Amino acid sequence: MPDHKYVIAVDWGNSHLRAYLCDASIPHQLVIIAQKNGPGVAKAAIDFKATLLACIAPWLEQYGGLAVFMSGAIGSNIGWQESPYLPCPISPYDVATSCISVDIDDYDIQIAPGLSCVLSNGHHDALRGEETQILGWLMQRDSHRQGQHLLCLPGTHTKWVLVEDGKVKVFKTAITGELYDLLCNGSVLIQQGSEDFDPLAFDQGAKYTLTSEAGNLVHGLFSVRSKQLFGEFNTSQAANYLSGMLIGADVRAALNATEWRVSSFDSVSIIGPEKLDQHFANVLACEGINTTIYDSKEMTIAGFALLIAQQH
Amino acid sequence: MPDHKYVIAVDWGNSHLRAYLCDASIPHQLVIIAQKNGPGVAKAAIDFKATLLACIAPWLEQYGGLAVFMSGAIGSNIGWQESPYLPCPISPYDVATSCISVDIDDYDIQIAPGLSCVLSNGHHDALRGEETQILGWLMQRDSHRQGQHLLCLPGTHTKWVLVEDGKVKVFKTAITGELYDLLCNGSVLIQQGSEDFDPLAFDQGAKYTLTSEAGNLVHGLFSVRSKQLFGEFNTSQAANYLSGMLIGADVRAALNATEWRVSSFDSVSIIGPEKLDQHFANVLACEGINTTIYDSKEMTIAGFALLIAQQH
Repeated sequence: MPDHKYVIAVDWGNSHLRAYLCDASIPHQLVIIAQKNGPGVAKAAIDFKATLLACIAPWLEQYGGLAVFMSGAIGSNIGWQESPYLPCPISPYDVATSCISVDIDDYDIQIAPGLSCVLSNGHHDALRGEETQILGWLMQRDSHRQGQHLLCLPGTHTKWVLVEDGKVKVFKTAITGELYDLLCNGSVLIQQGSEDFDPLAFDQGAKYTLTSEAGNLVHGLFSVRSKQLFGEFNTSQAANYLSGMLIGADVRAALNATEWRVSSFDSVSIIGPEKLDQHFANVLACEGINTTIYDSKEMTIAGFALLIAQQH
Repeated sequence: MPDHKYVIAVDWGNSHLRAYLCDASIPHQLVIIAQKNGPGVAKAAIDFKATLLACIAPWLEQYGGLAVFMSGAIGSNIGWQESPYLPCPISPYDVATSCISVDIDDYDIQIAPGLSCVLSNGHHDALRGEETQILGWLMQRDSHRQGQHLLCLPGTHTKWVLVEDGKVKVFKTAITGELYDLLCNGSVLIQQGSEDFDPLAFDQGAKYTLTSEAGNLVHGLFSVRSKQLFGEFNTSQAANYLSGMLIGADVRAALNATEWRVSSFDSVSIIGPEKLDQHFANVLACEGINTTIYDSKEMTIAGFALLIAQQH
């Protein structure tokens, strides 16, 4: 018999699998006991069941048939089994009642649905995984469930999310992180990536895309290479400059979005991985925008706690 | 003894090696006798000498130690041996006197220099290989060597080149073709590429970037995926839509460039590979810009003819 004291929450996106063994004995709260990481959905030719079990089998053995809750790209059409997209505006609480069960013997595995919306230009947009973080963010304080708020969730894909009275109204995706990885690892711009942060090179990149003519990202990217060719930057500085350019372009597009007016918010809530959250905060600060940073893992777990509480 | 009736011209860029055995017996003219292709400079861990000889060894055996002239990324800092960048404004004729000899026994191999310039925003730009095509284009008619002309050379990297009284004055690089390849082969946007041309999807992509808000490329790219998710496009249409978006962004940036005014030219000269030249022409036509298309292989060979004539 499954032990309801423990559950497994799995955040499985395009780039990463993060599985958490959690103690669920306090109502509406999860306490992480252990974490295991694995490859993301976008990795070629991945065996989803084997990949998941490689992470969680020891926990299943120790505690019996624990319930498993997953969210993220694992529920997309390039994932394991497709869960629906719930159209906005919608309360992320409604996600809890639309989870699907994975068709698999012996295990109780649920996948959360994603959200979809229609932008003012008629394009559809979609997210998966972030709904759990937004739900966690909504639980942080009463004021988050009242009035309008703008959230920025950077990662492989940045999601800019407009929340109104506790509902997700509309959101926009930018493939900023994915573009950075592609350009660092596969283009002539950068011959090798770097982990070092260089604030001056980063700022120079961000200022370029924040202030240049319309469309100049596509004409400006080559300067990542030319600044190395002509001795202005070493490779590490060039990688930071590229990161600044892309985040600057992303922020600038958010500032120009017709779906909201960034300056109308007292503060933009950033929910992202460490360092990246700070990079977005710095670029928004260049434009005079205040930000409040929330830890993405904390928001994910808080969101899963809500989802799971509504299932039992 | 080398037979001066024949020479080998090699166009060796980031993506492709194209070697031409040419009859040079008519002054200032080359006639292609045979062509062999090989991998570009950006391919990982390439042995440049072995790669070149794999293409041209049969010609060397048949005709003795022919002179070999190369241009393109092979002369860059990620190529075989670095040739200089000549600063603009400069006449491409001057390239002929700055070729470098490859340090290699038994063979007479020359690499043409590239060109560099400083843009109005202070960024450096650089090109290699296109100088040969521009030289070929200048030879097409007297009028090309008088007054101002704007050239567009699409490829892995688009080069927009301002020519004034026979000199290259300034130019801008956009990594449009490289971005397309990266996004088609390595991103979540497209699961597999397509060779089919879909004019409606292409136009829709181009119109999006030609007309949208500043910076919206980075926010618009995700629609390549969402239009597949929500049934609007199949994969092939999505790839064409992406191509249109990127070329539209490139053209829009050229229209917004501070280094020239596109509308002041009677016609923009496009020198590019087949199909791609037509795609750029179509997008420029959307903005009311006339274009004249020149075959890139023909311009390359005409440029090499000039380079080689000045060496002998």
